Amino acid sequence: MTSASKALSVYVAAFLDELVRSNVKNIVVSPGSRSTPIAMVAAEHPDLHVWLNVDERSAAFFALGMAKARREPVAIVCTSGTAVANYMPAVVEAKESQVPLIVLTADRPHELRDIGAPQAIDQLNFFGKQVKWFVEMAIPEESPEILRYVRTVAARAVSTSLSGPSGPVHLNFPFREPLVPIIEDEHIWESGLDHRTQFVKAAESKLMMKDEELELLASGLTRIERGLIICGPLDRPGFAEEVVALGDKLSFPVIADPLSQLRSGVYNKKLVIDSYDAFLRDEYISQELVPEVVIRFGAMPVSKAVLLFLKKNPQIKQIIIDGEGLWRDPTLLASEVIHADPVLFCRLLNKILLENKGRKTGEPTSNWLESWIRADRVAGEVLQHFGNEEQEFEGQVVLRIAENLPDNATLFVGNSMPIRDVDSFFLNTERNIRIMANRGANGIDGTISAALGASTVAEPLILLVGDLTFYHDLNGLLAAKLHKLNATIVIVNNEGGGIFSFLPQSEHPKNFELLFGTPLGLDYSYVVKMYGGEFKRIDDWNELSAAIKNSKDVEGLNVIEVRTDRSLNAEKHRKIWRIANETIKANWEQGEGDAH
Amino acid sequence: MTSASKALSVYVAAFLDELVRSNVKNIVVSPGSRSTPIAMVAAEHPDLHVWLNVDERSAAFFALGMAKARREPVAIVCTSGTAVANYMPAVVEAKESQVPLIVLTADRPHELRDIGAPQAIDQLNFFGKQVKWFVEMAIPEESPEILRYVRTVAARAVSTSLSGPSGPVHLNFPFREPLVPIIEDEHIWESGLDHRTQFVKAAESKLMMKDEELELLASGLTRIERGLIICGPLDRPGFAEEVVALGDKLSFPVIADPLSQLRSGVYNKKLVIDSYDAFLRDEYISQELVPEVVIRFGAMPVSKAVLLFLKKNPQIKQIIIDGEGLWRDPTLLASEVIHADPVLFCRLLNKILLENKGRKTGEPTSNWLESWIRADRVAGEVLQHFGNEEQEFEGQVVLRIAENLPDNATLFVGNSMPIRDVDSFFLNTERNIRIMANRGANGIDGTISAALGASTVAEPLILLVGDLTFYHDLNGLLAAKLHKLNATIVIVNNEGGGIFSFLPQSEHPKNFELLFGTPLGLDYSYVVKMYGGEFKRIDDWNELSAAIKNSKDVEGLNVIEVRTDRSLNAEKHRKIWRIANETIKANWEQGEGDAH
Repeated sequence: MTSASKALSVYVAAFLDELVRSNVKNIVVSPGSRSTPIAMVAAEHPDLHVWLNVDERSAAFFALGMAKARREPVAIVCTSGTAVANYMPAVVEAKESQVPLIVLTADRPHELRDIGAPQAIDQLNFFGKQVKWFVEMAIPEESPEILRYVRTVAARAVSTSLSGPSGPVHLNFPFREPLVPIIEDEHIWESGLDHRTQFVKAAESKLMMKDEELELLASGLTRIERGLIICGPLDRPGFAEEVVALGDKLSFPVIADPLSQLRSGVYNKKLVIDSYDAFLRDEYISQELVPEVVIRFGAMPVSKAVLLFLKKNPQIKQIIIDGEGLWRDPTLLASEVIHADPVLFCRLLNKILLENKGRKTGEPTSNWLESWIRADRVAGEVLQHFGNEEQEFEGQVVLRIAENLPDNATLFVGNSMPIRDVDSFFLNTERNIRIMANRGANGIDGTISAALGASTVAEPLILLVGDLTFYHDLNGLLAAKLHKLNATIVIVNNEGGGIFSFLPQSEHPKNFELLFGTPLGLDYSYVVKMYGGEFKRIDDWNELSAAIKNSKDVEGLNVIEVRTDRSLNAEKHRKIWRIANETIKANWEQGEGDAH
Repeated sequence: MTSASKALSVYVAAFLDELVRSNVKNIVVSPGSRSTPIAMVAAEHPDLHVWLNVDERSAAFFALGMAKARREPVAIVCTSGTAVANYMPAVVEAKESQVPLIVLTADRPHELRDIGAPQAIDQLNFFGKQVKWFVEMAIPEESPEILRYVRTVAARAVSTSLSGPSGPVHLNFPFREPLVPIIEDEHIWESGLDHRTQFVKAAESKLMMKDEELELLASGLTRIERGLIICGPLDRPGFAEEVVALGDKLSFPVIADPLSQLRSGVYNKKLVIDSYDAFLRDEYISQELVPEVVIRFGAMPVSKAVLLFLKKNPQIKQIIIDGEGLWRDPTLLASEVIHADPVLFCRLLNKILLENKGRKTGEPTSNWLESWIRADRVAGEVLQHFGNEEQEFEGQVVLRIAENLPDNATLFVGNSMPIRDVDSFFLNTERNIRIMANRGANGIDGTISAALGASTVAEPLILLVGDLTFYHDLNGLLAAKLHKLNATIVIVNNEGGGIFSFLPQSEHPKNFELLFGTPLGLDYSYVVKMYGGEFKRIDDWNELSAAIKNSKDVEGLNVIEVRTDRSLNAEKHRKIWRIANETIKANWEQGEGDAH
């Protein structure tokens, strides 16, 4: 045993042990030589689960999905060189979607940098502004001071990854040869711990506005007759109940993005509006529904109709509640930006409103609420009815999934068309369904990996993706095989980039298929078989319904392909939106007739 | 036609046109919305070849391989968001291996940044130190000044990517909606050109040392009796002849890394040493062969034996010739670093030496040369003979390939074991064979894509990879299908990370297979079929020989899998090296006997 090897082992063990004591329970390891000390020591830690993943791009997305599903940090480790570069896509997504990732990269030591040594690249600040914190770690030593240092960095890395806005942190470890640690000593974990149960513990904090400003806001809101709450992508347990109570107290309808998690679960959804994406497209209807005030939570909703609705009406006073300390207002029309934890904000505001009860008298807002609720109910009925009538229609895929998802299922949704169709066609349900997506940077990359990462704690898990998104992360399927994960993947295969048919370039047929349509002509049954999964191309919607129903009993990887018609899809969507909006208008006229 | 659309079109057309006039003939496009202006205009340019590739990671490596094979810059373009992040691995490799890549990324305009707009990430200086130049482009306008600007940036981007050290440059284009350009106007290409044939032309330059220093060096070298030239990875047409002439004039043997391109082609290889990796491992032999002076060209050779040989003998005066202005000396033992183009350096030095002919008299160095040449010949014979005898032996794969490669073939070699086996077993040949590999950062990522990119100009192309490398870039196979490329891929499938069996962690069986061996258990015949390729698992070496011989007639993708035994591979290598070195020693003794 050389003293260098001992120092290496003790140092790495202290680091990983403090990560674990700071609540990191999972590490995704990609094979490599320079990262040997971390990989080998991690595999020995009794409370650290090692997940092997060969392709670092998939590995990082796998960790991202796991971290999101568990709502806790997950570590990843890889060797030096382009391995690090393959982490970049998931790091960007983690940054943009506030997911705590602890990125550990092994590096050559100082004396082997920038001198043409193999597999040595410049890893310092490699991720630039895409990470919250970068640390060039000290060369391993076992002095008390260095062990305090390494435990402190571990604890601080976790704390930094979790503090608002949550996100990735990057620690770069220069390691000298020999790289093989000494792992036989069972006391290795206590090194540097100094008899504490955790070397240093960081408390979690939340943002909140000042009391007097909240009071002022409350009193202003109670005077608003036409108010609207918009909940975008946001994943906070307890938020749904609080925000709906707020809507109820203010008589404001609550627009619920599918990723707000408001559309599912057992609570009163009377005010929860889910079909806005259809009816806010209509000029007449949307003009009838323009509020004086909007309170917005979370990221901007997926719906482009909501964005345009806000942009077309700059007179709306927009109040943005952002618990992450960000400034998420692509409308550039916010009147107030409030940095406050959304759950805490709603709870405290509800308390004030409750104390002031009776302030809001009479029924001045009931027509307002009624118009929203009726438009939503009618649109929802049309979407469901006509969505189920269209053949080879992508909306129906979501309707079938929504209808048949088992209670407590997790639905992971790919970007591009699937998330938009979920927005349109996944309507309110009493079942407890968690909807997830990579909506930080909205990439089509890494989706399979992220979903499979989530599946390690979320069962049953159903992933809905388009064929290009499925293709982009085929390598991610390996995790299902290696780790024996259970997941159902529904591929909406329209042979290419369906979303482009909704964009202006679709009116320019020359080169459209070459540059945007991009039909790949791949039979995915082959690759699914290679990864040991079951593949089924369904011809009948009932097969899809049955597969979703049975997803809770699925063992291993189950892939279902639904073939749809890309060329007609945009048209079918537009047709259904049109019917929905005509029906709403008829219903409103009818309602007004009733009222007279 | 809005004036914004016209400005967009004219601006992008001027940019792309100037790229083309600066000798960029190829652009690899990944589908996306924000990048629509560049993609649609590029597809119209009569002299720009558009290659579509969906996965941006593969797209960038495809461009890298093409740029290397063509020895000219290739452009890539993608949309905003994580698409950009997927370029990172190839950008790193391009930086480290000095490949000119013109990275074009579309971005949201200023008013949509950092405010939660979809698919908007911080793309400014995204690649950090991994690119040579970053430009945040101006918002499109069609004023004469802005058109001069955009043409100048295009020409300068190409020039910067080519100037030593060559490498990637990144131009970020903020684009506002509407994104569809107006491409009907055929005069669009001349905008801003001001009747010139090229707006601005940058001359290529080379580094060279001062004349008097070269004279001094020449006169010093002629006094050296025991000198050695080491040629690492280096791709300069004309270098082989010049450096061998230099060796001849100085009576220095020339160690030729497989990527030095010295082992192939019709020229005198008397001094070209190809089996050093075997015999420099032997302590006795290597001590007999220690030079006084080493002249080193290119990157550090693949061979670890060479590195250790230099490190064990710090008294060797190492002169490093680096035409890229880099400082590639992982031994940290260089005595002189000379920034000079290697071809020019050799040519001018040869000229001086020729003028000084007769200075080096007698035969003082013939024993020196003789020892090297005999060791090399003997080792080569042993490697060939015993390599062909071992069953399921990875060395034999290379021997078979080397023997049967058609003239003018390109052999693209994966990292990890294949490049090391090529180093050991691909010996000097009269055929004209170009050997390529991603030896900048030595990653196992992107290899299929890079090889297929090369195959667009290099035919026949044979790619030799291990199974993990093959797995890592499976998505790269799509390019073969989409672009109907012809390539033969030989997979050495030893079920996992064979190289780790050569490293110290192999002596720690606990967790070895989990963390390093990583058997994936994938039957690649499925995925090859999916991409429309032919797959064959061969049982007989003659089948491999025949397949390589026939590679020049291959149409489409042809994948050949050779199953080998990972557990015994390291042992077989060691056995052959041992035999080679025993034979050399016997031969030397014999030789000495002869001399007496």
